[in-house]
Amino acid sequence: MAGEHTDDESQRGESNAATAAVLVIGDEILSGRTQDRNIGYIAQYLTGIGIDLREARVVADVEDEIIAAVDALRARYTYVFTTGGIGPTHDDITADAIAKAFGVPLEEHPRAIAALLKYLRPEDLNPARRRMARIPQGAKLVNNPVSKAPGFWIGNVIVMAGIPSVMHAMLDNVATELRTGVPVVSRTIKATCKEGDVAEGLGTIARNHANVAIGSYPYFSEGTSGTNIVLRSRDADALETAYNEVVQLVATVRHTGASPF
Amino acid sequence: MAGEHTDDESQRGESNAATAAVLVIGDEILSGRTQDRNIGYIAQYLTGIGIDLREARVVADVEDEIIAAVDALRARYTYVFTTGGIGPTHDDITADAIAKAFGVPLEEHPRAIAALLKYLRPEDLNPARRRMARIPQGAKLVNNPVSKAPGFWIGNVIVMAGIPSVMHAMLDNVATELRTGVPVVSRTIKATCKEGDVAEGLGTIARNHANVAIGSYPYFSEGTSGTNIVLRSRDADALETAYNEVVQLVATVRHTGASPF
Repeated sequence: MAGEHTDDESQRGESNAATAAVLVIGDEILSGRTQDRNIGYIAQYLTGIGIDLREARVVADVEDEIIAAVDALRARYTYVFTTGGIGPTHDDITADAIAKAFGVPLEEHPRAIAALLKYLRPEDLNPARRRMARIPQGAKLVNNPVSKAPGFWIGNVIVMAGIPSVMHAMLDNVATELRTGVPVVSRTIKATCKEGDVAEGLGTIARNHANVAIGSYPYFSEGTSGTNIVLRSRDADALETAYNEVVQLVATVRHTGASPF
Repeated sequence: MAGEHTDDESQRGESNAATAAVLVIGDEILSGRTQDRNIGYIAQYLTGIGIDLREARVVADVEDEIIAAVDALRARYTYVFTTGGIGPTHDDITADAIAKAFGVPLEEHPRAIAALLKYLRPEDLNPARRRMARIPQGAKLVNNPVSKAPGFWIGNVIVMAGIPSVMHAMLDNVATELRTGVPVVSRTIKATCKEGDVAEGLGTIARNHANVAIGSYPYFSEGTSGTNIVLRSRDADALETAYNEVVQLVATVRHTGASPF
């Protein structure tokens, strides 16, 4: 980060970029049963199309928690992407929560029913499965080529499945309609020096290049240690200049001591 | 989840259990450069010692964001575990943010300096590395057997490193002092039937066993699909009863149609 006390928009020179939050909904993540991989996937995806992911949250399958998180996030960011809780069982309450957050009724959507019937015989379309066709009034459907049951998009909130393969397909489907921007480009310097030996110089370079975010990530394992220095910016020239300064900095530092930092 | 419209404490019969949130601090997670594994690790760990993880958040290396998240979470949960941002570089601002959240100064802690000097020659203890010994006034140190630079514990907030191996050691160090509880026990039924065929029955079982959380997780990949049904409770008898009811339910359901749900 280029400076600690300035607003983060100006820090990165990205004030026109669309922003986003991810809201993962599911007890299974918070119990540790399932390792979330959706945050990381969406993070990479949005970075690639020039949308800044600013925050992620994981909440349980509890209606009030979902509503509170959706309301907090949709007020702050251009887009909110939710994953999870749109299946047919009693613990799938995302659609209910989103409808309440927006103050609209849930309605059975004819095209959602039609989508379900691509996989289901009419006699198998029981009340539980019909739940998956309940969409908040005014929402657009998000097609699901994998397993048919759709997600939806209401206001600035995009509701997707929790199963990664389904979520990936849904994200592909909505991406063409998102306000994308200039992607952030990054360069990484894998330095063998210690973080503590380049920290002061890195801080100076970061201060001098307000639109380049500089992160420092130490690594160490048996016998070897060093620092990955990652520079990120939408400004290719500034990135190049800062990169060269970091390369120069790293070249002047000796690998000292037994410390990993 | 046992019911949609009741308070989540009473849903699970867990009103005496300690609760927790995880706050992951780091641009690298939100850019997609690094896949977070700390949330899942802490989730499993806390579940194992009877503490309920209720929420997780990921925020950027931006001071105001860290302060806002810490304040929101520490007001709601028994414990808040943070990871990341306690190294020597300009983007490591967690200690500053936590001190501001608690309204106390940061002070160089003599035992933290002593810990750093186990790895460092005195001449290598430069201002950047000394930053790692700055601890909010009144905080206790959390020892770091891996790379020496300590975490700390202030109020109900436990500040740990972002590097998984270091975080694991810090969590082991604080675990003995946490208010632990009766662990939630879980049983899983891997059903070959579709989620939509057991959804109604599962909902009934969930309603009848308010202290058993029942989650349903469909799986499907080429040619095969089904549902993992996970029951979780602190009440072994209730868990056993609900488990038997789910086994019976699943046995009565035929595997129908081409739908994955």
